Amino acid sequence: MNIFVVNSGSSSIKYQLFRWPAEQPVCSGLVERIGSEQATIRHKVFDPQAPEGNPPTEQFHTLPLPDHEVGLREVVRLLTEQPGGVIQDPGEIAVVGHRVVHGGEVFAATALITEEVKAEIKRLFVLVPLHNPANYLGIEVAERLFIHAQQVAVFDTAFHQTMPEYAYRYALPTALYEEQRLRKYGFHGTSHQFVAAQAATYLSQPDARLITIHLGNGCSMAAVRGGRSLDTTMGFGPLGGLVMGTRSGDIDPSVLLHLQGQLGYSAEQVSTLLNKQSGMLGLAGSNDMRDIGQALAVGDARATLAYDLYCYRIRQYIGAYTATLNGLDAIVFTAGVGENDAMVRARVCQDMEFFGLQLDEVKNQERAPGLRDLSGPDSKVRILVIPTSEELEIARQCAQLLANE
Amino acid sequence: MNIFVVNSGSSSIKYQLFRWPAEQPVCSGLVERIGSEQATIRHKVFDPQAPEGNPPTEQFHTLPLPDHEVGLREVVRLLTEQPGGVIQDPGEIAVVGHRVVHGGEVFAATALITEEVKAEIKRLFVLVPLHNPANYLGIEVAERLFIHAQQVAVFDTAFHQTMPEYAYRYALPTALYEEQRLRKYGFHGTSHQFVAAQAATYLSQPDARLITIHLGNGCSMAAVRGGRSLDTTMGFGPLGGLVMGTRSGDIDPSVLLHLQGQLGYSAEQVSTLLNKQSGMLGLAGSNDMRDIGQALAVGDARATLAYDLYCYRIRQYIGAYTATLNGLDAIVFTAGVGENDAMVRARVCQDMEFFGLQLDEVKNQERAPGLRDLSGPDSKVRILVIPTSEELEIARQCAQLLANE
Repeated sequence: MNIFVVNSGSSSIKYQLFRWPAEQPVCSGLVERIGSEQATIRHKVFDPQAPEGNPPTEQFHTLPLPDHEVGLREVVRLLTEQPGGVIQDPGEIAVVGHRVVHGGEVFAATALITEEVKAEIKRLFVLVPLHNPANYLGIEVAERLFIHAQQVAVFDTAFHQTMPEYAYRYALPTALYEEQRLRKYGFHGTSHQFVAAQAATYLSQPDARLITIHLGNGCSMAAVRGGRSLDTTMGFGPLGGLVMGTRSGDIDPSVLLHLQGQLGYSAEQVSTLLNKQSGMLGLAGSNDMRDIGQALAVGDARATLAYDLYCYRIRQYIGAYTATLNGLDAIVFTAGVGENDAMVRARVCQDMEFFGLQLDEVKNQERAPGLRDLSGPDSKVRILVIPTSEELEIARQCAQLLANE
Repeated sequence: MNIFVVNSGSSSIKYQLFRWPAEQPVCSGLVERIGSEQATIRHKVFDPQAPEGNPPTEQFHTLPLPDHEVGLREVVRLLTEQPGGVIQDPGEIAVVGHRVVHGGEVFAATALITEEVKAEIKRLFVLVPLHNPANYLGIEVAERLFIHAQQVAVFDTAFHQTMPEYAYRYALPTALYEEQRLRKYGFHGTSHQFVAAQAATYLSQPDARLITIHLGNGCSMAAVRGGRSLDTTMGFGPLGGLVMGTRSGDIDPSVLLHLQGQLGYSAEQVSTLLNKQSGMLGLAGSNDMRDIGQALAVGDARATLAYDLYCYRIRQYIGAYTATLNGLDAIVFTAGVGENDAMVRARVCQDMEFFGLQLDEVKNQERAPGLRDLSGPDSKVRILVIPTSEELEIARQCAQLLANE
């Protein structure tokens, strides 16, 4: 069976094709700048016979792509066109798994897409005006191009729907929750679920108390036990919690009111400030951790502060979520920064003896694929790096859903 | 020596007179509704000969008070008028200690009030437009009425000026800190300092790792070591952190942007919502913990949620600040709710074995004056209740300042 995973953004489509049940990635790619004359497609084909670590065959095209439909049609051409094609016909794709950012309170699990499900996704546009509409567009286009496939929605929020009410509610008037659904939803659920499941398997401890730390452009943490999310750092939107590339993370609401009341910012300017000009970019002048790491190495004061603040907030949430879990069995670093930035991991684990964290400094510096256990010999808590793959998790959820039908 | 402590609000003056060095409270009182025809003064005189626990003699007056000056003049009349007067003449007051909410980054300690200090307090109006102007007014009035006294300012923010930069900075563009002083200041410093000092003395451990939990109408926590504040839950303003009577505490900044962008709130309406309609009032319909406790006792769902959320957030900050301190020697409950609400203390300490907290349920229910140690026999961490007295701490700081001159 072929499962095709689609992550449709406002001007991009990320995709990956898997053979199932082998979980074997066949090809993947990224369409960017949809709507322009200079749109691009990067398309990679993996050779299943090649030894692990061999680079995939890569194609790169620049071409006009007026809309998502034309973009996805080009992808289908790359999938099917011989030589280099990986399937004969779009009909060979049995399932299309769509990443959908927001599932609200309706979707606590992956869902087969029906007209009702689509209507519900549309109703959630108001909560994430930047994301759900683009995901929705991807669904509609895929329905037209893969007419024989089952369409499945995998929600970024679904994994966190197990949070207890005292964790997901804000201390706002009840009506704002009941009528406007103002609450913590959390995001990156697919990634947290993926690495938490692997960590529990690695520990042979299905009920392990885990803190998963997803550090990419967006950053979030989750407290997970028995495969259930109990709390997470992102809230109503993907802005709060940890310091991110360009997003502020947690910030005193007084600051927003002061920016508007005293410093003349409009609400829109505050939004731009907190979403695009803050985080590591605001503190250190770059949102690329490699640049900041280099500046830190030569003693740059801003880079030092940015790293300290970034890691301090992670340490505080490790403390907070240890309280949520009343204990801790493992922490898991994942996503770009979490998998690759040894300095971040070292600073997060520093001065955390009380929590039982002891990092093996040598293992922390080594690079290797797959799950890595960086715990030192005296560590009471496992310190793991687990590469995330939201695409693989989406494919797994699709396969599971169909198997249960 | 007589030390007179003044806490001047926008339409109120709270005051207390101490004999020094005995630290003996002579009288205290509260002027309210200044600016109205129906202003009130509640004035209490303590009898130093009476056994402890005896109620003070109390007077209550309703009278027109057009402004702070007339209000304070009436207080002076109550202090000096025989019978019942406690001094003969305002000239007997050697020091007037003023509570000033915001000392910015300039005041890391208590300061003798000079024209320069007054100008600096004025410059900080922009950061706390609701508080510093009222405190300033109190200073000017006291200068006219107690012309022979030294005037001293004790800042609510000063104690937290020892926070490291990575704890007090937000992940905002550097210019907003450097030019607009947007950072975490923290409040309730006088109270945190007062109870932290007592806890360290009780433990005979000057370097104790302490978490102080001030739960009144406003609520905040601080991580304290060696008499220095390392972090605190309130930030730029007194709105963030813990859930309070009517204030939201921490909230995802996305919520504020959504209220304005999608639900049509103005910035001012958001401010009113988060400051006056949220917190326990928003969740449970009351900001009196006794009412909510009664509703909880009969199984009211909103009251239960409100209590759970209130206590969960405290537990998470205990976790976070244990990370800040890399360990924990004692937690200290103080202020109205912290000193009196056994249910809050019980819920905060529940399921916190990992942190070494074990509450003695019987001691927790007992009422007694002074410091109480509620730790159970197996508690690795001391669980203390210490009644706060911001007035006494202000008087102490005044005495210390003058002794060091």
